Amino acid sequence: MQMDIAALPRSAELIDRAGDTLVLRVVDQRSLPQNLVFVDITTYHDAIEAIKNMTVRGAPLIGYCGACALTLWACNEFKSQADMTNFIQQLAQVKEAIATARPTAVNLAKETNALFKIVQVTLKTTDDLDEIKRTMIDHCATLAKADEATNREIGSFGAELLSQNSTVLTHCNAGSLATVFYGTALGVIYSAASLNKIDRVYIDETRPLGQGSRLTAWELSQAGIPGTLICDNMAASIMATGQINAVIVGADRVCANGDFANKIGTYGLAVLAKHHSIPFYVAAPRSSFDFDLQTGSEIPIETRDGAEISTCDLSGIELLNPAFDVTPANLVTSYVTEVGVIEANNLDVLRESN
Amino acid sequence: MQMDIAALPRSAELIDRAGDTLVLRVVDQRSLPQNLVFVDITTYHDAIEAIKNMTVRGAPLIGYCGACALTLWACNEFKSQADMTNFIQQLAQVKEAIATARPTAVNLAKETNALFKIVQVTLKTTDDLDEIKRTMIDHCATLAKADEATNREIGSFGAELLSQNSTVLTHCNAGSLATVFYGTALGVIYSAASLNKIDRVYIDETRPLGQGSRLTAWELSQAGIPGTLICDNMAASIMATGQINAVIVGADRVCANGDFANKIGTYGLAVLAKHHSIPFYVAAPRSSFDFDLQTGSEIPIETRDGAEISTCDLSGIELLNPAFDVTPANLVTSYVTEVGVIEANNLDVLRESN
Repeated sequence: MQMDIAALPRSAELIDRAGDTLVLRVVDQRSLPQNLVFVDITTYHDAIEAIKNMTVRGAPLIGYCGACALTLWACNEFKSQADMTNFIQQLAQVKEAIATARPTAVNLAKETNALFKIVQVTLKTTDDLDEIKRTMIDHCATLAKADEATNREIGSFGAELLSQNSTVLTHCNAGSLATVFYGTALGVIYSAASLNKIDRVYIDETRPLGQGSRLTAWELSQAGIPGTLICDNMAASIMATGQINAVIVGADRVCANGDFANKIGTYGLAVLAKHHSIPFYVAAPRSSFDFDLQTGSEIPIETRDGAEISTCDLSGIELLNPAFDVTPANLVTSYVTEVGVIEANNLDVLRESN
Repeated sequence: MQMDIAALPRSAELIDRAGDTLVLRVVDQRSLPQNLVFVDITTYHDAIEAIKNMTVRGAPLIGYCGACALTLWACNEFKSQADMTNFIQQLAQVKEAIATARPTAVNLAKETNALFKIVQVTLKTTDDLDEIKRTMIDHCATLAKADEATNREIGSFGAELLSQNSTVLTHCNAGSLATVFYGTALGVIYSAASLNKIDRVYIDETRPLGQGSRLTAWELSQAGIPGTLICDNMAASIMATGQINAVIVGADRVCANGDFANKIGTYGLAVLAKHHSIPFYVAAPRSSFDFDLQTGSEIPIETRDGAEISTCDLSGIELLNPAFDVTPANLVTSYVTEVGVIEANNLDVLRESN
């Protein structure tokens, strides 16, 4: 097997050509796997729309795109240096609209708010708009670099958990497409594959939007890693055969006690993994940890349009479409982060180093 | 709530107009829920095709259709009274082709073989083709009546297991459409609903072919029972909320020890039900029990075309499509049959009365 992640695109890139309109160029994830299409975004409003309609998705990626969206507004939409008294008020409104575009992944609000605070601090020493724009663009560039570096660290730590000839199962897409580059859960798989540890990856299709069948299957195919696509309801019987050595998923938000939200279906997988004594790993950067929430019951869970499940309207039949579920910490073997592999009772090390 | 199962069609009916070609009229289940279309079948070959391509599906229904297919051949395709020495040899070949059209549900082979044996016995006392045809047609009529009576008994016994204001979850379609009329798992729900015991039914969509989203949702809508359609991977999180009082499914084959095969995803649901301390009931007629098999590992599991899962061809990505899985008896609370509610350690009462 020849693993080659160079075949994967960067999921999002801020393109700054001096004097030109600032562009956020993203992979349109709705077009995959049939077509690899890039979309250029130049306004914060279009960025919010891309986040909501899942042109871009994945907790780390929408965190990065949130910071970029704020930067697009400052660079492309706020024009008047003369009006700097209004700048921070308007930026606050824009920040709020971006941060609340989707509720479950903590990264979106966290990265958007973090950049806003950086601007607030910067304003204490300068009110030069060009300098502020430069600060924001530079911050986004730093975020993009840090994203890949973080994911490669997660990958390295996670790969150590896997034995030779591992067959792993994953759900949704916590891949390169869910980040700027490389991925979290799939980052572990890429790192392990580079050490020839991966025999095969079972891919849950991940209804209703098919992030597994469309995105993870495409990523693994591009990277040259053997995959088997299954329907979500087949995972249990594959586990029962003894073929699965580990389950690895990402996370949209991990609470202080280790409970975490991730794509709908993750919780059921965790229960099934426990029943079959299969290790269940959560791969997530520190930016997905939210120490402001004590337990998973506090995580806001996004409910999406029922039309994503079914377009058939049957009298008396409701359509329920929660996009995420919460998995309690006691079902997690360990959390794979950029600072190491951590158990639930030891998550405070992340808080301290945050 | 006004429950009305009279709105449901008979799934299959043998139409015998003296002198005319014998017709097996079936609901084309591939056209639901958009259109209720009936298909007239007159040859055993077309009947086999309808079973294979899932125009008809559901263990009890394909059992009935197997007997009807054998009868279609005898009545419409074997013509010569003069050639009765060849009749039973040819009937044996036709019987074999029908019985093996799909492997997992025991009913198909069981009902087809049973009618074949009746013909063998009849041939000992007469070689009059018309009398044999009449015997076969009468047997199918008896089967159709017995199917509905059996299902109503299953329904009555099962309804006693449910409390007032029950919310139940079901997988696939073990409804009227899976039988000649009334259904097994949904038969329990219809009986309970007639006693005003059912608040709501959660319906697993049942990937890849959507027997839940297309068939069960349609049946419940027709019958006026409130339903909520969910993706298969949402069941765990609904269970975690405490809303589900019972899980009820059908069975394609139950072994002597109580292990049973049913639509892929059933096993995972059973594990999840156990984790959440939710009763897990299997509703099935005696005809779905196979005492020739001791444990579930002996059940042949049909694998269907990967194109049912995904039509996207990605290099290096396999498509796996097992149509059934096996649930061990220790995850089953009880089996609801036409002779009563039985626990796994007591299934021998079915063997004795068989």
